[in-house]
Amino acid sequence: MIEPVRPIAIEDVEQARQRIAATVLRTPLVRFDERIWLKLENLQPTNAYKIRGATNAVACLSDAERAKGVWTISAGNAGQGVAYAARQFGIPATVVAIETAPQTKLDRMRALGATIVPVSYQDAWKAAESHSFEGLEGTFVHPFDNHDFIAGHGTMGLEILEDLPEVRTVIAAIGGGGLITGVGSALKARNPDVKVIGAEPETAAPYAYSLEQGSPRWFPDWQASFVDGAGGKSVTERMWQRMRPVTDGTITVTLDEVRDAMRLIAEKSRTIAEGAGALALAAALTGEAGEGPIVCVVSGGNIDLSKFAELVVS
Amino acid sequence: MIEPVRPIAIEDVEQARQRIAATVLRTPLVRFDERIWLKLENLQPTNAYKIRGATNAVACLSDAERAKGVWTISAGNAGQGVAYAARQFGIPATVVAIETAPQTKLDRMRALGATIVPVSYQDAWKAAESHSFEGLEGTFVHPFDNHDFIAGHGTMGLEILEDLPEVRTVIAAIGGGGLITGVGSALKARNPDVKVIGAEPETAAPYAYSLEQGSPRWFPDWQASFVDGAGGKSVTERMWQRMRPVTDGTITVTLDEVRDAMRLIAEKSRTIAEGAGALALAAALTGEAGEGPIVCVVSGGNIDLSKFAELVVS
Repeated sequence: MIEPVRPIAIEDVEQARQRIAATVLRTPLVRFDERIWLKLENLQPTNAYKIRGATNAVACLSDAERAKGVWTISAGNAGQGVAYAARQFGIPATVVAIETAPQTKLDRMRALGATIVPVSYQDAWKAAESHSFEGLEGTFVHPFDNHDFIAGHGTMGLEILEDLPEVRTVIAAIGGGGLITGVGSALKARNPDVKVIGAEPETAAPYAYSLEQGSPRWFPDWQASFVDGAGGKSVTERMWQRMRPVTDGTITVTLDEVRDAMRLIAEKSRTIAEGAGALALAAALTGEAGEGPIVCVVSGGNIDLSKFAELVVS
Repeated sequence: MIEPVRPIAIEDVEQARQRIAATVLRTPLVRFDERIWLKLENLQPTNAYKIRGATNAVACLSDAERAKGVWTISAGNAGQGVAYAARQFGIPATVVAIETAPQTKLDRMRALGATIVPVSYQDAWKAAESHSFEGLEGTFVHPFDNHDFIAGHGTMGLEILEDLPEVRTVIAAIGGGGLITGVGSALKARNPDVKVIGAEPETAAPYAYSLEQGSPRWFPDWQASFVDGAGGKSVTERMWQRMRPVTDGTITVTLDEVRDAMRLIAEKSRTIAEGAGALALAAALTGEAGEGPIVCVVSGGNIDLSKFAELVVS
């Protein structure tokens, strides 16, 4: 039984903030240029924003649910988030992980004590759509289609408004859609004038395609790329219901633009962003996002250092 | 006329904090492991802690002094700090810069509108010792032997105590000695039990040598290295007076240890530290710093990305 989709209320986000305060970092918002700011979620203990939602979701489980342990599906960052949260509660975690995830993500999930079940991208996406994977015990914590998980991400929106009350536009990468739903819900509740824009790579832009077609779709020409932490195969019906009311559009960027944005983030903020983490800045730099101040969520930094060097130093 | 050395009072630091609040980032303290935390000064707008002291020092000048413009001496980070502060006040800045500074540091000083006067390391150090350089107009802002500059750095100490009240040891790199004097003064005023330890590279460890000899000395075998932002040629008599009362010792590390620490900072915090920025962690990891929690100041991140990749990815 999957619970029906309901809007993320601002109270859900405020309560999440208290639940996760001792675990997550209140990340800094740093200036990129005259118009653009970066919300550095790559500094989180797991080096990705997913720890916000994961911590809230695990905290919201009943004692009986938690006692069974938890499992999730992940391209790497949600798995680290859930494993980290599970460790805080002293319960076991299993991650159905995309087998092509960067080594750094797989290593870190294991280091956090998670059991890894490697699967193909296709099978992981199928499990995320169906909310099920055969043979696993424990309580399922969906990495994006989960109310509490999304409410946890919304805490970022509260922080952005505190640090930059004059913000006009916030851009966040779309993978499953949980990040933008959370952030968008918090922002729109507090200030409906803030524009909330998605960012997708040209190789995996199902939300842009779905908006074009007017309904949730599979992306026809999906390709794997170094932007492994975002870019789903499809927008699910449920995530469509979640995202649509709290977003104002999406920008599709090329892989070269993502790579440039990774370099610029390194040069300016001296932090390491993974491909997905640089999507929002790449989108801002297209000029299509409208007026500033623009906040770009740097969603994560989990990329193998050698791959980072290869992409950024040339 | 150089004003006599006097202790940095906690009130000086508290006032500095107010003066610089709108300009500097309140940097996050992130966990490195069970025992060690990193204070990420590499996230500052100029990607180094020097902006704290520079902003306070320029703000403390009289209107008449500021009207003449300012100049400083720098291996790169102080110059960026002073140039940034000068730009905030709309006044010109000149930097007597070590000509072998990384390109990224020189470029950024120019981008901030500073006029660069390139000199040898030897000549820059002489100017720092004598507080003079012929032919320059404007008000001199010494990059470390300056009360207000040091008080500005002290603000970091207040933040560390707020974020981790149970801290036992704080480690900071020693270049000129301003950073450790500022941080040490604030920490000792608030909690005399906190240990304050310096970190120097084996190629430039004049404080370790001076402590051994019992008086301020020139370091006999100084060598240039990628740790360009720390490691002076000598401890001056005045900096000896400043540092001694607020420090509990220093740890000397090898260049290989610094390089390892740079890699570990990148892996764990996903930030880019320059050599000097990794000194404190390298010192902590020797095990000589005593008990935790230990805070390591990651003082800066201004290193050419290609050099970073060369040192860290292998």
